[in-house]
Amino acid sequence: MLSPQMADNTPLLDSIASPIDLRKLPAEELDSLADEVRRTIIATAAVNGGHLAPHLGVVELTIALHYVYDTPNDLLIWDVGHQCYAHKLLTGRRERFCSVRKKGGLSGYPRPSESEYDAFGVGHSSTSISAALGMTVANDWLGNDRKVVAIIGDGAMTGGMAFEALAHAGHLGKDLLVVLNDNRMAISPNVGALSSYFSRLITAGIYTRAKEDIGSFMKRMLGEHVTRAASRLEQTVKGFLTPGTLFEQLGFRYVGPVDGHDLPTLTECFSNLRKLHGPVFFHVVTQKGKGYSFAEEDPQTYHGVAAFDITTGRFTPNSPPCPTFTEAFSQAALEAFRADSKVAAITAAMPTGTGLSTVAKEFPDRVYDVGICEEHAVTFAAGLAAQGMKPICAIYSTFLQRGFDQALHDVCLQRLPVVFAIDRAGAVGEDSPTQQGAFDLSFLRIIPHLTLLAPRDAQDLQRALAWALEQSGPVAIRYARGLAPRIGPADGRDISRAEILREGTDATFLGVGPCLAACLEAADALAREGISVGVVDARFVKPLDTAMLDRLSGGLIVTVEENTLLGGLGASVLEYYSQEGKFEGSGVRVKTLGFPDRFIDHATREEQLAEIGLDAPSLTRAVRAFVQHHSGHPVA
Amino acid sequence: MLSPQMADNTPLLDSIASPIDLRKLPAEELDSLADEVRRTIIATAAVNGGHLAPHLGVVELTIALHYVYDTPNDLLIWDVGHQCYAHKLLTGRRERFCSVRKKGGLSGYPRPSESEYDAFGVGHSSTSISAALGMTVANDWLGNDRKVVAIIGDGAMTGGMAFEALAHAGHLGKDLLVVLNDNRMAISPNVGALSSYFSRLITAGIYTRAKEDIGSFMKRMLGEHVTRAASRLEQTVKGFLTPGTLFEQLGFRYVGPVDGHDLPTLTECFSNLRKLHGPVFFHVVTQKGKGYSFAEEDPQTYHGVAAFDITTGRFTPNSPPCPTFTEAFSQAALEAFRADSKVAAITAAMPTGTGLSTVAKEFPDRVYDVGICEEHAVTFAAGLAAQGMKPICAIYSTFLQRGFDQALHDVCLQRLPVVFAIDRAGAVGEDSPTQQGAFDLSFLRIIPHLTLLAPRDAQDLQRALAWALEQSGPVAIRYARGLAPRIGPADGRDISRAEILREGTDATFLGVGPCLAACLEAADALAREGISVGVVDARFVKPLDTAMLDRLSGGLIVTVEENTLLGGLGASVLEYYSQEGKFEGSGVRVKTLGFPDRFIDHATREEQLAEIGLDAPSLTRAVRAFVQHHSGHPVA
Repeated sequence: MLSPQMADNTPLLDSIASPIDLRKLPAEELDSLADEVRRTIIATAAVNGGHLAPHLGVVELTIALHYVYDTPNDLLIWDVGHQCYAHKLLTGRRERFCSVRKKGGLSGYPRPSESEYDAFGVGHSSTSISAALGMTVANDWLGNDRKVVAIIGDGAMTGGMAFEALAHAGHLGKDLLVVLNDNRMAISPNVGALSSYFSRLITAGIYTRAKEDIGSFMKRMLGEHVTRAASRLEQTVKGFLTPGTLFEQLGFRYVGPVDGHDLPTLTECFSNLRKLHGPVFFHVVTQKGKGYSFAEEDPQTYHGVAAFDITTGRFTPNSPPCPTFTEAFSQAALEAFRADSKVAAITAAMPTGTGLSTVAKEFPDRVYDVGICEEHAVTFAAGLAAQGMKPICAIYSTFLQRGFDQALHDVCLQRLPVVFAIDRAGAVGEDSPTQQGAFDLSFLRIIPHLTLLAPRDAQDLQRALAWALEQSGPVAIRYARGLAPRIGPADGRDISRAEILREGTDATFLGVGPCLAACLEAADALAREGISVGVVDARFVKPLDTAMLDRLSGGLIVTVEENTLLGGLGASVLEYYSQEGKFEGSGVRVKTLGFPDRFIDHATREEQLAEIGLDAPSLTRAVRAFVQHHSGHPVA
Repeated sequence: MLSPQMADNTPLLDSIASPIDLRKLPAEELDSLADEVRRTIIATAAVNGGHLAPHLGVVELTIALHYVYDTPNDLLIWDVGHQCYAHKLLTGRRERFCSVRKKGGLSGYPRPSESEYDAFGVGHSSTSISAALGMTVANDWLGNDRKVVAIIGDGAMTGGMAFEALAHAGHLGKDLLVVLNDNRMAISPNVGALSSYFSRLITAGIYTRAKEDIGSFMKRMLGEHVTRAASRLEQTVKGFLTPGTLFEQLGFRYVGPVDGHDLPTLTECFSNLRKLHGPVFFHVVTQKGKGYSFAEEDPQTYHGVAAFDITTGRFTPNSPPCPTFTEAFSQAALEAFRADSKVAAITAAMPTGTGLSTVAKEFPDRVYDVGICEEHAVTFAAGLAAQGMKPICAIYSTFLQRGFDQALHDVCLQRLPVVFAIDRAGAVGEDSPTQQGAFDLSFLRIIPHLTLLAPRDAQDLQRALAWALEQSGPVAIRYARGLAPRIGPADGRDISRAEILREGTDATFLGVGPCLAACLEAADALAREGISVGVVDARFVKPLDTAMLDRLSGGLIVTVEENTLLGGLGASVLEYYSQEGKFEGSGVRVKTLGFPDRFIDHATREEQLAEIGLDAPSLTRAVRAFVQHHSGHPVA
């Protein structure tokens, strides 16, 4: 029975302080343990939100791995990390688990600084095989006796670097186990030819050929000395060995597919696999959301969740007064698609997260989900643009780091009219430091030919997208996670330049994006103290609106951006004023505010902005001090 | 007979103003044309230098493609572009061909702004299938009747984004031809499991099974209507259809392998392939350097060449007074390997270019060539570091753009002690704008935890590498192409901070890297005019040596870097002084010099630096004007 109290009765889990305790459990108790782990994950996610369905799919897989492998001496590398909750619960973090994703609490991702069982930090997709291979080679060279296992989803397998790593591993021939956690989903249903290939393997394996004799396969695969184990295995295994030609061609032995919720099979298999030499690819079929009916039925919705009611599966009611930036983008894209049949859109396995799923419903022929392939996504968009389409390439800020070279080399060098729609730019809240959108203004600004802007609210984003699609060269539009503030005034104004939101005589906020709402709030607070502060939406980080900068160049300016302080809007303003000699004599004085030069830990978005010093009270304090320090300095 | 005059007698080539003329030639004349094209390429490369062996390998392939396909309506996308000379010679650029790679002349790479036959700009590896797929989809949607062909080497096929694109193309099922130009080489001999797979296909195809009946294969593949063509083809083809399972599993039809120097076979095949529907993978086996015995025997040396004597194959004698940065790195790495068995090195298919081949000769077990896989290379290095090795990840500046996210997410976030050895940072000379090392200081500087430095000469680089390997976190060392100047003084000095190379009272150059030699030269020239200019090697771009900056903060500073002006050393200096309030009153005045915000065209490195304004005369002029403008301003 599912209820909020269901995580209270977990005697087996409570008895496990580390995997050493787990390994003392009799095998027949593992299913009960899986049930306890699963209930704990559901109960916690119901309160804290965060990823849910992927964690539920790997409970048995995780138990089997820790049951058989000698962690932490043996190393488990979890790709992406969306599936690490069972791992955290079994590796000494059960007590602190209720703090997951909260400020100061456990991370929602594996993190070496948190536990010796987290062998490698992850967050972005498709890194696990590369890291695991490096570790294998190092341990081999250094004479360390430890096994290395990479656990990777079928979605992450579509990423090119996973393929690069497979080919290298197959070439080197070292002992490395790659476990494919195949739930036929990336975040949304998985796409692409590789996914079809996995489906064929499953069809050929578990279902069609389930009655064939697997003993001889295992014997051939494992050799005579493990024939007895193979024979026992034959009793329970649902899958068996089938030629996974693609992986065999790359130098791997392919084993599978097997049922990823069948604990006896998994522990048997791992016991045998642990003895194998050379690179092995083990295909495990799991169900995303397993054990929670709502998540099983709709794993995409329950991939990542807000707080919800366990019994009904309903999310805590939430009627926001403003749309999110994502919703605003989605609506604007839909309008652009309706108006012009040359508009297309690309997502790298994030149709829902980017808001493109709404567009895809009406225009399935022009929205391309390319899988977790940001590199290909960008150059594919370049190809579309080169032949006359108007592609919108919608990629989160943190993942566009993967497409940096392609944006520079394939899109911007050729001035191709690709529009980058960059969601989750700035503080992203409860996710890992790996997911912060903290760098895009800096790494995009240095690319010649690129126009880079950051709308301040929903209406501004919608007008920016329409404007961008009219340009003859590349344009990047970046916007934040979550609700878009209502800032205005915007109606009928010129979207192609900076805009004065509020006049002031003592200093001026010069910002981009939704943090302009905090600037306005701070300006209000300062006005009550008798300090008159203007607010200007720079809007463009590249090219700068130099007419506006010239106008402001006699006074005190505070730049504000949700981006690293290094090399972003603030730096570009300094570069301009320096180049123009505006610091001379009683010239301009600039204070730059943004993200500090460190990675930002998980917390709510509000907590992060307050800690960074970009909320209204922080801005108020910063400007007050700046103005006081410069009292007597002339202003614009 | 090979001689300097051998390109003079090219009557067939001279008659071809465009592929329209080519298509009028009788098929039996194509071999003679290939000979003329080849002689012209050799003669030009002997004078101009540049890529040679890859161009020679695809002469017949290029002729066959233009002979059969209706270019420029049909689109040829050349991966990387190292193989476009025959294409250029056949598409209206024969007259200007002697200008290739020279300032103002033809580019050594395909370039859409140069010719309508260059359908997509390239330079970095593995982009062609993504671009071609985008074009295919666009033309399909827009109703344009044009075929799209991607031509990609077996080296470039190892790049992950090529795999991403294959999987997407296989999924979409559109008409797309991917021609694999398989010469078993990347730039050096190709490595990895994919390369072994291709070798097996070749063995199974051309050689072992050459006597099987190919008619039935062709009939099955092409259908009844082309049986006659297939039957004719049977007479000449050396290769035939063999199951290229890996590609078939991804939704492609595999055809091949065929002899890529057999023009009748190639034209027959393309005539048939042009009628096929869906994604097709055509495996063509070529010989790199074909037709020039020296290049055939040593394709790695003749991949890219300096000027050479055609008859002897000998390179123009060159006894440089200084070693190149690459040689200095190579020597330093060798010493590090000898001193510490935990030191390892990684190259992405550039063992010779990076200088690691020398190290690999002595330490084959610790130098990893991962193929053209920069993403994997960086995360593989992270894995090595995570388990206690000291990896040196040697990647050219322009290609490290491919590993930006991995450097940030996998190395720096975890503070793993990976040393990035970044060659070709700055102006790279005759190669394409795609290859300039113009951005690394800017995109690396924004990454938290990374130490970033740019040694000024060979000795400084060697000390920097030894120093970097002692650090507990990630360090990036960037250095330029070509000869390292001898700058000194350096002996016994502290490598961990900035260094005063010359004292001066009117202004100070604050630079990094070999452009400090030009700064010293400019300071000499200015001294003769009575202007006293100091020269400081900042050495570190991150963290800045703030004690040195504080010391200089009362005067005139000119920052100098071989990097975009946006967000690099200059910006970091401005950020620091702004943050510290050093612009106040009669404070510091900064002028920043670097690359302009545009892509840098090919020319010699010296021409580029002069045009950019970073040679000694330009620096002299810039500082003279700066000092004169600020005469009366106090100095440090």
